[in-house]
Amino acid sequence: MNIYAYSRAEATPLTLLERIQSLDATRHVSSYVAFVISGHCVGQIHRRLIPLLLSINGDGRIPLFSRIQGRCGAEAITLDDDLSTNEERTRAMNIVTDDLIRNGIIKCRHGDRYGLYNEGSNVRELLCMVDRNAASCFGATSVGVHLLCYRKCCVRTDRQDSIQDCDAGSVSLWMAQRSESKSSFPLKWDPTVAGGQPTDLSFVENLVKEANEEAGIDDSLARRATAVSCLSQMTSKPNGTCMKQSLYHCWDLEVDENFLPYARDGEVTKFELWDSDKLEDEVRQGNNLRPAMRLVVVDFLIRHGIIKPDDEQNYATIQAAMHRERLILWSE
Amino acid sequence: MNIYAYSRAEATPLTLLERIQSLDATRHVSSYVAFVISGHCVGQIHRRLIPLLLSINGDGRIPLFSRIQGRCGAEAITLDDDLSTNEERTRAMNIVTDDLIRNGIIKCRHGDRYGLYNEGSNVRELLCMVDRNAASCFGATSVGVHLLCYRKCCVRTDRQDSIQDCDAGSVSLWMAQRSESKSSFPLKWDPTVAGGQPTDLSFVENLVKEANEEAGIDDSLARRATAVSCLSQMTSKPNGTCMKQSLYHCWDLEVDENFLPYARDGEVTKFELWDSDKLEDEVRQGNNLRPAMRLVVVDFLIRHGIIKPDDEQNYATIQAAMHRERLILWSE
Repeated sequence: MNIYAYSRAEATPLTLLERIQSLDATRHVSSYVAFVISGHCVGQIHRRLIPLLLSINGDGRIPLFSRIQGRCGAEAITLDDDLSTNEERTRAMNIVTDDLIRNGIIKCRHGDRYGLYNEGSNVRELLCMVDRNAASCFGATSVGVHLLCYRKCCVRTDRQDSIQDCDAGSVSLWMAQRSESKSSFPLKWDPTVAGGQPTDLSFVENLVKEANEEAGIDDSLARRATAVSCLSQMTSKPNGTCMKQSLYHCWDLEVDENFLPYARDGEVTKFELWDSDKLEDEVRQGNNLRPAMRLVVVDFLIRHGIIKPDDEQNYATIQAAMHRERLILWSE
Repeated sequence: MNIYAYSRAEATPLTLLERIQSLDATRHVSSYVAFVISGHCVGQIHRRLIPLLLSINGDGRIPLFSRIQGRCGAEAITLDDDLSTNEERTRAMNIVTDDLIRNGIIKCRHGDRYGLYNEGSNVRELLCMVDRNAASCFGATSVGVHLLCYRKCCVRTDRQDSIQDCDAGSVSLWMAQRSESKSSFPLKWDPTVAGGQPTDLSFVENLVKEANEEAGIDDSLARRATAVSCLSQMTSKPNGTCMKQSLYHCWDLEVDENFLPYARDGEVTKFELWDSDKLEDEVRQGNNLRPAMRLVVVDFLIRHGIIKPDDEQNYATIQAAMHRERLILWSE
């Protein structure tokens, strides 16, 4: 089974819902088992990685991972329960990272470290840190910020009961074409600004920084953006890596006809203003967007009334599909 | 166990996420079994209704319901598979409705009929119709439309790169107090306009009708509203009735200082303009809203940047909790 949704041969045109769902690895639930640390489900592991993980030993040649039974008797993999602190578990995951590299599952360390948390409980606790590249084998959460700079034609009216008379079809969004040198999805298109979330900045600080670096947007203008939504998606590659829950935090920023983003840091080749027809056409049948960005654009089109409940029969299901929680295969 | 979340004694203050989750009957998964028609999970049934349902016979004293095994061996209840048409199944559900009334589970027929559909499959097919009051025992989907009339203080600036300089904290929402004569939640507060969705109107037509009836809003003004979101929630009463997936379709309408809604049809006692501080205070710790409307107001506050990801640690999880799909206890 090819679990790499992006390369799926599309024999018949997919509906918008199917296109959204095709990006979501949670539909391949049977290929994964839960990854449990200290009784908490923190992610998931592709079945083809299980033999390797079970063969990895820690100090005193004690196996670092073992099989346990989760809900409905489902298989789960747990990190050794004797590792009781963040530091001990982080050291263990470092050993695992070495083994993943030695076996060619991941090429090298990334350097950035992801935290694994007991997300389900009331008090969020850091259970361990793991290299970003290794984290992609364990279904860790990856967080990104997105700034959507859009234009809207507004006409002042004389009516007392209305502030503005806007044609819902008139909204346009500044899109960014990814640089040819990008390792993933070169020359595909993203919404105006996109960036990963580091641990040492607030969301807004990161947004302002990325807006400046990627699109030359003034700090003061970027700070006027409105936080509007957070979308969720599970992604995966066929070899069991790049398995992660992605959270896309989105901000809207209305700009006028004088606004012009420009590529500053080499991540973007150029910017273009796409009208709502082009945006909707792209998410429904195009292949020019970075696939995961279909979510961000569909959310934008829904929030601005371009995709409407009367015209889109899967309106409610599409929104549910874009806000799914992490796949829980095992729970307390 | 008290499954009626609204009456729960709250010993310690709940977080916003917990308040959202407390309205959601899907957390009481173990109290329900899947309701299956012709192989499709169309809803769920409270365990305490199972003995009654299993005792109901159709033509020739053939039982109308039987137990089957679903995913992970979970119990499920199915309508007799020999009932192969919409008409046959609708007639059977009519017999069931009589039995539910005879046994005091529901008081009477409502008159309106809900359709049960095979929602999971690609082609949406009507499997049967069931009286609205009886549908509440089977976890049927209930759809509502909501119009949110809001005011925003916008100051035109001279900056070329910005259309308007809005203080995100300045947004206000017109709220409606439910009439004292309402059978459910009298005197509690709803967003501006709320109404159930009949089968014979489009969403927009229904919205325009309700806006006029409930708040005296002109058709032309109501038609300027923007469809912005669809929220989902499972509700239930302790006796196993009122079990339904509610879909709240929301429209935003920006109005100016001259806009004044007025109560026309007796469903609303009065309207008040609530600022964002009051709205946020209400959803976080108040009890003046109709409980399910916390979702609609939280969604409004998120979309308008009042509740922000940097300030609300459960931002992503709250949004996932408001967009859940129907509880599937059994699937093909």
